[in-house]
Amino acid sequence: MEFKAITIAEFLKGKVEGDENVSVSNVSKIEEGKPGTLAFLANPKYEKYVYDTQASIVLVKNDFVPEKPVSCTLIRVEDPYQSMAALLELYQQSKPQKFGIEQPSFIDGSAKMGDNIYVGAFAYVGANVAIGDSSKIYPQTYIGNNVKIGNNTIIYAGAKIYDDCVIGNNCIIHAGAVIGADGFGFAPTPDGSYKKIEQVGNVVIEDDVEIGANATIDCSTMGSTIIRKGAKLDNLIQIAHNCEVGENTVMAAMTGVAGSTKIGKNCIVAGHVGVAGHLNVGDRVTIGAMAGITNNVKEGKTVLGAPAMDHDRALKTFVVYRRLPEMRETLNDLQKEVKELKAKLNEE
Amino acid sequence: MEFKAITIAEFLKGKVEGDENVSVSNVSKIEEGKPGTLAFLANPKYEKYVYDTQASIVLVKNDFVPEKPVSCTLIRVEDPYQSMAALLELYQQSKPQKFGIEQPSFIDGSAKMGDNIYVGAFAYVGANVAIGDSSKIYPQTYIGNNVKIGNNTIIYAGAKIYDDCVIGNNCIIHAGAVIGADGFGFAPTPDGSYKKIEQVGNVVIEDDVEIGANATIDCSTMGSTIIRKGAKLDNLIQIAHNCEVGENTVMAAMTGVAGSTKIGKNCIVAGHVGVAGHLNVGDRVTIGAMAGITNNVKEGKTVLGAPAMDHDRALKTFVVYRRLPEMRETLNDLQKEVKELKAKLNEE
Amino acid sequence: MEFKAITIAEFLKGKVEGDENVSVSNVSKIEEGKPGTLAFLANPKYEKYVYDTQASIVLVKNDFVPEKPVSCTLIRVEDPYQSMAALLELYQQSKPQKFGIEQPSFIDGSAKMGDNIYVGAFAYVGANVAIGDSSKIYPQTYIGNNVKIGNNTIIYAGAKIYDDCVIGNNCIIHAGAVIGADGFGFAPTPDGSYKKIEQVGNVVIEDDVEIGANATIDCSTMGSTIIRKGAKLDNLIQIAHNCEVGENTVMAAMTGVAGSTKIGKNCIVAGHVGVAGHLNVGDRVTIGAMAGITNNVKEGKTVLGAPAMDHDRALKTFVVYRRLPEMRETLNDLQKEVKELKAKLNEE
Repeated sequence: MEFKAITIAEFLKGKVEGDENVSVSNVSKIEEGKPGTLAFLANPKYEKYVYDTQASIVLVKNDFVPEKPVSCTLIRVEDPYQSMAALLELYQQSKPQKFGIEQPSFIDGSAKMGDNIYVGAFAYVGANVAIGDSSKIYPQTYIGNNVKIGNNTIIYAGAKIYDDCVIGNNCIIHAGAVIGADGFGFAPTPDGSYKKIEQVGNVVIEDDVEIGANATIDCSTMGSTIIRKGAKLDNLIQIAHNCEVGENTVMAAMTGVAGSTKIGKNCIVAGHVGVAGHLNVGDRVTIGAMAGITNNVKEGKTVLGAPAMDHDRALKTFVVYRRLPEMRETLNDLQKEVKELKAKLNEE
Repeated sequence: MEFKAITIAEFLKGKVEGDENVSVSNVSKIEEGKPGTLAFLANPKYEKYVYDTQASIVLVKNDFVPEKPVSCTLIRVEDPYQSMAALLELYQQSKPQKFGIEQPSFIDGSAKMGDNIYVGAFAYVGANVAIGDSSKIYPQTYIGNNVKIGNNTIIYAGAKIYDDCVIGNNCIIHAGAVIGADGFGFAPTPDGSYKKIEQVGNVVIEDDVEIGANATIDCSTMGSTIIRKGAKLDNLIQIAHNCEVGENTVMAAMTGVAGSTKIGKNCIVAGHVGVAGHLNVGDRVTIGAMAGITNNVKEGKTVLGAPAMDHDRALKTFVVYRRLPEMRETLNDLQKEVKELKAKLNEE
Repeated sequence: MEFKAITIAEFLKGKVEGDENVSVSNVSKIEEGKPGTLAFLANPKYEKYVYDTQASIVLVKNDFVPEKPVSCTLIRVEDPYQSMAALLELYQQSKPQKFGIEQPSFIDGSAKMGDNIYVGAFAYVGANVAIGDSSKIYPQTYIGNNVKIGNNTIIYAGAKIYDDCVIGNNCIIHAGAVIGADGFGFAPTPDGSYKKIEQVGNVVIEDDVEIGANATIDCSTMGSTIIRKGAKLDNLIQIAHNCEVGENTVMAAMTGVAGSTKIGKNCIVAGHVGVAGHLNVGDRVTIGAMAGITNNVKEGKTVLGAPAMDHDRALKTFVVYRRLPEMRETLNDLQKEVKELKAKLNEE
């Protein structure tokens, strides 16, 4: 689909500067702008690109003052980033949507399927499943027995949901994610082998949650592993059994949370972080990349490092850490000097 | 299914205290206990919950002396945790089991399928495969050519087993796990590109092994990557080509072992650990979370940190590490003091 | 298939020493050699095995001088490792190849399928897909709408390619890999929740790339996440949105690259590494295992540690780090000594 500058400006409540009839059919980054695309300029360090970009339209701030002539059409808006986000959403929605049930698929006779849904080929829907309206179950997904899925939720290709799990409304589960596999629970036996502790709980994912590709969220031993409303989990994340991730908490890729730990709400957890088991991380905590959390973290704290420390201490520690070889030398020199001083003092 | 307190007590060889006819149909954590469920009290720090829990039955130790009145029915047993595990097992076994071959599935004519098995829809079973009795091959799994799978083994939805791999009896392979993908072997060429070294070996998984969701175990270049009897590997684990993981070794999520490394038996490896290639980790070694193993580790050792150190040294090192900024200050102060002392001494 | 020593020697342009009619049907490691197999000896520390190996044929260097009698047949070649690689390739090629379209599979009527291809059962090929000649699409793979795949590329079982992605010639995508899932982009809102930034870009994978099992490569917000020609990415790797990985760069398992970072060409990145977002890593950079990259890295550098440092500094730092407890004691002792010196000096 093509959109004219004037149409886009109206949608964004912006003002056109330049050819209001130029039209675009795609978006681009300003530094890679191609004719027929729309780009945006939010970060001032990208300003240099606006003068040469091949993009046909660029969204700029209301108060943007070009230093040189600009050949593309500008649309002035209050917040170019948010305007761009709104356009991306429009663009995404304009794509053809999938509906209906493709064949062959496997839907158990006892499953309750909502209106207006999509079920892709080779999807498997088990006994007593309930799927809400307008949800999309992509090809090759596995929905185990008794699973409940809300309205307007997307389960992408090949995601696997074990028996008894519950997924809310407006969720997105990306390809390859595994929800509800057995928690890692074994009891040692006298001969050194391990006996499996059966994991009979489930995973509950509340509304508005997004789970990344190939992430794994284990079921609880009993009761539920819970991902609260609005949490966003990136790819390849591991949430172990009996955990809870709080409302609106975001977690970047490859972070792992060990069993029975509770992460508060509105936390920001960077990538490659490890959180030990049976801990409590308070609300609004920020955890830096690759941190190792071995103790409870109080509400509002920012922590960093492995083992993790308070943010300010960690930054200072990193600086000294890098200078350890020099520090070792200084210490050696001092040792020598003190020895000499002592000798001198004893001589006198 | 419902069970009366008296029936459960008989099964567990325990003693009922309270209403022996109260019945339960599910299990719960004591702190979240609901009517109609059974909970257990093993850890004394949870004792406070026993007085208010809504659970209908609670398993307690034989010598438990309540400090306040208890409204639920108690069943006294020797070891509440083990009794609970036994009940969870019973509960799991009481669930309806899957049998038979769902359609559509793809089973090569040359495959030998055992008795009493389950093959889910959209499962793919290649040429010359042999699957033992009572095994369950869930939907959307891929079983490559010549794969051998023992008796009573479960391959969960969407797990992928490459050609020629061998899986023993009583194993559990969770959803999305990939067994036998090519080892990461490339030879550099003079022009800076890499030439693939074909990986013609396989993966051998012995009896009683559990492999977590989305874990990856690569095939050997030649011969076999081996996971020994009773090993338990958690989600998102990577075992590279030519490795061996010893009997009854447990490994927590997100741990990676590089090529040709041998991990001994009865080891405990925590999460997010990295083990470099071509190493030897002895039997009964314990490796702490997020450790980086860069050298061989002797039998029975406990190691921690990245690069890894002996456990006691690591703990001491961590303490000093956190205090590096203060240590740096102390050192600066000392430098000044020594300088002053020297000046004073020279003055005299 | 069986091959005689004389035939193998001719293929490798080598010389037979021993029975030139002995034949082999498989390969083995020299330390595990079995009759009827061929092994190789490249690393001198494995020489001891050549005297006892049960392998029927062993490839050795032209200038190899046995210290003891050898019972197997030797084939002398210039480079046993490269010769072995050539044989592994031959062996792999001699395996029966898959062709044709297995049923049931789902191929949209608008898809353009090349000649001589394989499409496995339960594979899903969306609208407007184009797949080149001689490519192999294994069972249970998902190829979204508008995806382009080149010639001679293998997509292993259960890999998932989202809409609009482009994959070149001679690529290998291993089982469970997810290409083109949404980048992790969310805008915070005043109430603490997050609004999804739609990710409308794609992933472009150039020729000769290999992607490991269960790896995830996210699509760009706009434009493309790019994996350049000849790059080799191991299992469980995460490449975030808007990244670029340079030509002939190799990356070991479990490494993650955060959004908008550019990795140069001919880099070697070890396992479990984390690279922060919006960085630039130059060409020919080497990054050690478990390193945390928080700053740009200049062309040709070798870095190590978390946070990462220059290689030489890191090695020195690691040495001092391990000795921190002793250093702390030395510092304490010095403090005491200086105090005593001061006291003594003041006394006088």
